[in-house]
Amino acid sequence: MIDFVANYSEEARQELVQHVKSHMSEKRFKHVLGVEKAAMQLAKDNGVSVEKASIAALTHDYAKERSQADFFAVIDSEGLDPDLKEWSNAIWHGVVGAYLVERELGINDTDILHAIIVHTTGAAEMTPLDKVIYVADYIEPGRDFPGVNKARALAKENLDAAVAYETKQTLAFLIEKEARIYPKTIETYNRWVAQKQ
Amino acid sequence: MIDFVANYSEEARQELVQHVKSHMSEKRFKHVLGVEKAAMQLAKDNGVSVEKASIAALTHDYAKERSQADFFAVIDSEGLDPDLKEWSNAIWHGVVGAYLVERELGINDTDILHAIIVHTTGAAEMTPLDKVIYVADYIEPGRDFPGVNKARALAKENLDAAVAYETKQTLAFLIEKEARIYPKTIETYNRWVAQKQ
Repeated sequence: MIDFVANYSEEARQELVQHVKSHMSEKRFKHVLGVEKAAMQLAKDNGVSVEKASIAALTHDYAKERSQADFFAVIDSEGLDPDLKEWSNAIWHGVVGAYLVERELGINDTDILHAIIVHTTGAAEMTPLDKVIYVADYIEPGRDFPGVNKARALAKENLDAAVAYETKQTLAFLIEKEARIYPKTIETYNRWVAQKQ
Repeated sequence: MIDFVANYSEEARQELVQHVKSHMSEKRFKHVLGVEKAAMQLAKDNGVSVEKASIAALTHDYAKERSQADFFAVIDSEGLDPDLKEWSNAIWHGVVGAYLVERELGINDTDILHAIIVHTTGAAEMTPLDKVIYVADYIEPGRDFPGVNKARALAKENLDAAVAYETKQTLAFLIEKEARIYPKTIETYNRWVAQKQ
């Protein structure tokens, strides 16, 4: 396997794209390319490595269509918190999926892996690359929901403001539909939304 | 000091009322009497000790007007989680205030003290008395906010449904105003609101 980080090129990117594409539906693959496009622009705007943004975006949902058994095997073999098993694909595909990206695609850049780990829940501590992927996933061109244009406008102006907006809206949406909330999401909210006051 | 739990009577209650009244504003005292009224009715409806409901309601906000220094002293002397110091009166008056109720009013009934501890945040595990105080605090006759009549109607029908409604509304309200959220509040939500699905 190519070292995609050390040898990033259009050819290497194409190889990574083929790996990713083979692991997901056409619809999800289109979303992934949208996230890559948005992430590369946000990276450029915020002085973040555009190559790392491309790789993290292409791989952020790499594990989304894996089985519960696959995730449980990683939780066990990596010694991750067994409480993770109480959650669902929405949490596993990032927090656990990053380990599959590392193993199967040979990507061991910690910036990229951390961005994958926190891309759904955010975190109290987020690097600029983490924020780029977290926000790009929310505003990519294929997204269409109330508030997405406001999120896009905020992201152009101020990445932290977009992180705050996305976090607040996501949390409000989860509560409205009475979905379970992963405790880390509250840490993200307390740091990026409430802390502003 | 009378043992208010073992020797509950109208006379004992009056003595407790005087202690409580001397520690708070007229407005808060009126709220406390409203919570007692609502709690005694909910207790009767739900097979909970009406005497314990009276005592827990009368003392639930006993510490609400104490200073930060008072709360920090209790956190230190009781060996409570030092992270509590990062929070505010909204959390301290229940979680820490219960220790002041125990020390200063001689109330050491664990059902009552637990109801005081969780009256603001709720908890994943709540006893019937915990629920009575949590809900009574929300629906007492002096409360006036959008949704309070729905909460009152739910409380008459089903105490758990009222716990769920209050938890969901409170969380949505905190997010709307971008206030910090105590992690235990999410445990309450995940158990009483989301778990229903």
